[in-house]
Amino acid sequence: MKIVIIGGGAGGMPTASNIRKYDSEAEITVITRDNKVSYSPCAIPYVLSNKITSFDDIVMKSPEDYKEKNINVLTEAEATAIDAEAKIVTYTHEGKEKTIEYDKLVLATGGNPFIPPMKGVDLDGVFRIRTIDDGKAVEEWAKNCKNAIVTGAGLIGIEIAYAFKEMGINVTLTEMMPQIVPRSLDPDMAKIIEKYLEKEGINIALGQPITELKGENGKVTGAVFGDGTEVDCDMVILATGVRAELGLAKSIGCECGRWAIRVNDRMATSVPDVFAVGDCVESYDAILRSPTISQLGTTAIRQAKTCAQTICGKRSRFNPVLNSMVSKVGNLEFGAVGLTTTFAQQNRIRTVTEKVEALTRARYYPNAKPMNVKVICDIDGTIIGCQIIAEERVAERIDTMTLAITEELTCFELSNMEFAYAPPVSMVTDPLVIAVEEVSKKFN
Amino acid sequence: MKIVIIGGGAGGMPTASNIRKYDSEAEITVITRDNKVSYSPCAIPYVLSNKITSFDDIVMKSPEDYKEKNINVLTEAEATAIDAEAKIVTYTHEGKEKTIEYDKLVLATGGNPFIPPMKGVDLDGVFRIRTIDDGKAVEEWAKNCKNAIVTGAGLIGIEIAYAFKEMGINVTLTEMMPQIVPRSLDPDMAKIIEKYLEKEGINIALGQPITELKGENGKVTGAVFGDGTEVDCDMVILATGVRAELGLAKSIGCECGRWAIRVNDRMATSVPDVFAVGDCVESYDAILRSPTISQLGTTAIRQAKTCAQTICGKRSRFNPVLNSMVSKVGNLEFGAVGLTTTFAQQNRIRTVTEKVEALTRARYYPNAKPMNVKVICDIDGTIIGCQIIAEERVAERIDTMTLAITEELTCFELSNMEFAYAPPVSMVTDPLVIAVEEVSKKFN
Repeated sequence: MKIVIIGGGAGGMPTASNIRKYDSEAEITVITRDNKVSYSPCAIPYVLSNKITSFDDIVMKSPEDYKEKNINVLTEAEATAIDAEAKIVTYTHEGKEKTIEYDKLVLATGGNPFIPPMKGVDLDGVFRIRTIDDGKAVEEWAKNCKNAIVTGAGLIGIEIAYAFKEMGINVTLTEMMPQIVPRSLDPDMAKIIEKYLEKEGINIALGQPITELKGENGKVTGAVFGDGTEVDCDMVILATGVRAELGLAKSIGCECGRWAIRVNDRMATSVPDVFAVGDCVESYDAILRSPTISQLGTTAIRQAKTCAQTICGKRSRFNPVLNSMVSKVGNLEFGAVGLTTTFAQQNRIRTVTEKVEALTRARYYPNAKPMNVKVICDIDGTIIGCQIIAEERVAERIDTMTLAITEELTCFELSNMEFAYAPPVSMVTDPLVIAVEEVSKKFN
Repeated sequence: MKIVIIGGGAGGMPTASNIRKYDSEAEITVITRDNKVSYSPCAIPYVLSNKITSFDDIVMKSPEDYKEKNINVLTEAEATAIDAEAKIVTYTHEGKEKTIEYDKLVLATGGNPFIPPMKGVDLDGVFRIRTIDDGKAVEEWAKNCKNAIVTGAGLIGIEIAYAFKEMGINVTLTEMMPQIVPRSLDPDMAKIIEKYLEKEGINIALGQPITELKGENGKVTGAVFGDGTEVDCDMVILATGVRAELGLAKSIGCECGRWAIRVNDRMATSVPDVFAVGDCVESYDAILRSPTISQLGTTAIRQAKTCAQTICGKRSRFNPVLNSMVSKVGNLEFGAVGLTTTFAQQNRIRTVTEKVEALTRARYYPNAKPMNVKVICDIDGTIIGCQIIAEERVAERIDTMTLAITEELTCFELSNMEFAYAPPVSMVTDPLVIAVEEVSKKFN
């Protein structure tokens, strides 16, 4: 079996590795524009802040490592055309145009940074962060930088802004929406993180877009906001999200949804023998039961597993997603899963919510830290969302809530669940239980 | 409504508080032998090791605090008889015999430390650890102590042994069974903790009971093991478990099981208007669907909630238990939920298990620590147990697995679940997922 995978990120490479696990004979070829494969873009901010020593550390495997598994990785190669009838991919590599036949094709073309409609985005000193090369370019430019603007206060934006602060750069984090992390957090929870970031010395400008970047001699020198305010800067990071790369998919007639390639729960596109995984595909929202996008590395990895198993004739289904996420900036860890109150309401779901402040350990145990938990329920008590902020032990509680939401538990049911307890590691009544008990009271 | 509660521990006091939440009028009286209420006996080892400054810190509420809620707490009082027909409890308090009427009676009589059949347990320097007074007596005696023996390597035994080590005392931890924590851990997982404790300087003697404690002038001087070996010591801690206190319950004809008072899922005993909660009652095992004991503070607290809600006419059920637990000794956190392989096999359940070593953070992130995870499945793949050891982030993963076992998930299902990821706080594929993926392979 000949398998061609276009894209060498968190969707493409695990697809290749997983296929090899099930099929030692398959001829597997990966075509990627990047000069590296198998690294974690999520780690770039932590290299900038020097938490991780070097960009080399975040590269998990080289093309040579794949070669050992008999997986052929073509770096700095670009797929330019697909003939889905003849099952041939045309690509350029080392200056030449070549072709390769396939039995099964996997589109793992990922996404491109979304460039907001503003003047001046081509000025020197304006960066996007998607690849290690982007990270290196920012690291280099930052050496002579005093004032940076990071626009887009999603996870990557916040993490980059915090990294700049740690590098000693004066930084302004801007967001068009009136709060940070609008996709995953309610305004009241976002406010806790906003306060923390401001206390740490990061300027935050919410609720208006940047309309123009100004420059001198081709270099960025400032940003103009919608209300006319100007802020000086010598670097701008566009952290305004990613749009699925759909060119090749559309060229062969793959059905696409509003945002990305439509696949079934086995990762098959509408075109025979063509599959797709990662940032370029639509997922299905577990609560709304409608298409959504889930541009997370973990989603790509799980899709890659299903894609590989499907190709190898094994039963596998990619489940609807809840977009669980976690991040850590400075000492603060925050995470979320399911719908925000805002998003639920936009989808005509009436919500009952409660926010509690508890502790990460027994009250009397040293270093017990405050933990904020917000639980969002449907009007019948079914849990549909949860957001947590604390200095420790957030991620795994998000996982517990992911499972609770997946299993469609109500707040009443979860409040009766067993939680493990020991004074150094938890409260005798877990913060999650306190939260669901409190929200339960609103149903009386 | 007149409510009398016998016992002021983790079963009795939360029953009182919860009843007050639902019923502002009820006359609530708690009768307890102890001179304090509402403290966490689990915290005693951490006071001994000075992690927590003083025994005062672990007392959450005083009888006066309860007085403010109009709950009458009689300390150093002992219930001596119950007339279940006339609904009268006789008790001694301040040297006098008194009586009190009840409409509803709650037995929260807890348990007594089990004293193993050995000579010399009455010698000075031999202690059990159940109350703060026990803790204070040990703290005092330890000042002149060089060599201590802790017998019983359950959680409290290990935590006390570690505390002694931190106090500079030479300590030997002994256990009749051939491994530590035999109730919750498989031998291979227990071995990891045994090695850690030995590395930390704790002597461990497994697989044989102490048959005799030797003494001089009424003070303990040594212990003799089953094989005749003798170990010198000037202090012995009996951490050999707790037996339900059943005297009063049996005197009024409450049906009892093999170990404790039998209650239904609303915490009602077989005697009308008599309820029971905490260490003195039987629970129901969620996997085996048969009676078990669950002498955990968290179990008592959840039972208290159901008991109070039942008494106040609210619908509430106490669910079967999985006995999830967690502990921390030194830098090592360990936890478990569900059945061990040994216990499953004793109950004629054939198991399929896998043990993996993963990391607590992304491989390239500083301070990623090894995490050992063992998953135990039934032969159809249903998860029935999990054990985890690492230096961080164990407790919440146990909670996730508790929920997975409660919902009767298979390893195949859990391996497809979403887990939140960020390099500083998790691996891109969670250790739990790695474990269930590995065990899944054994079903092919």
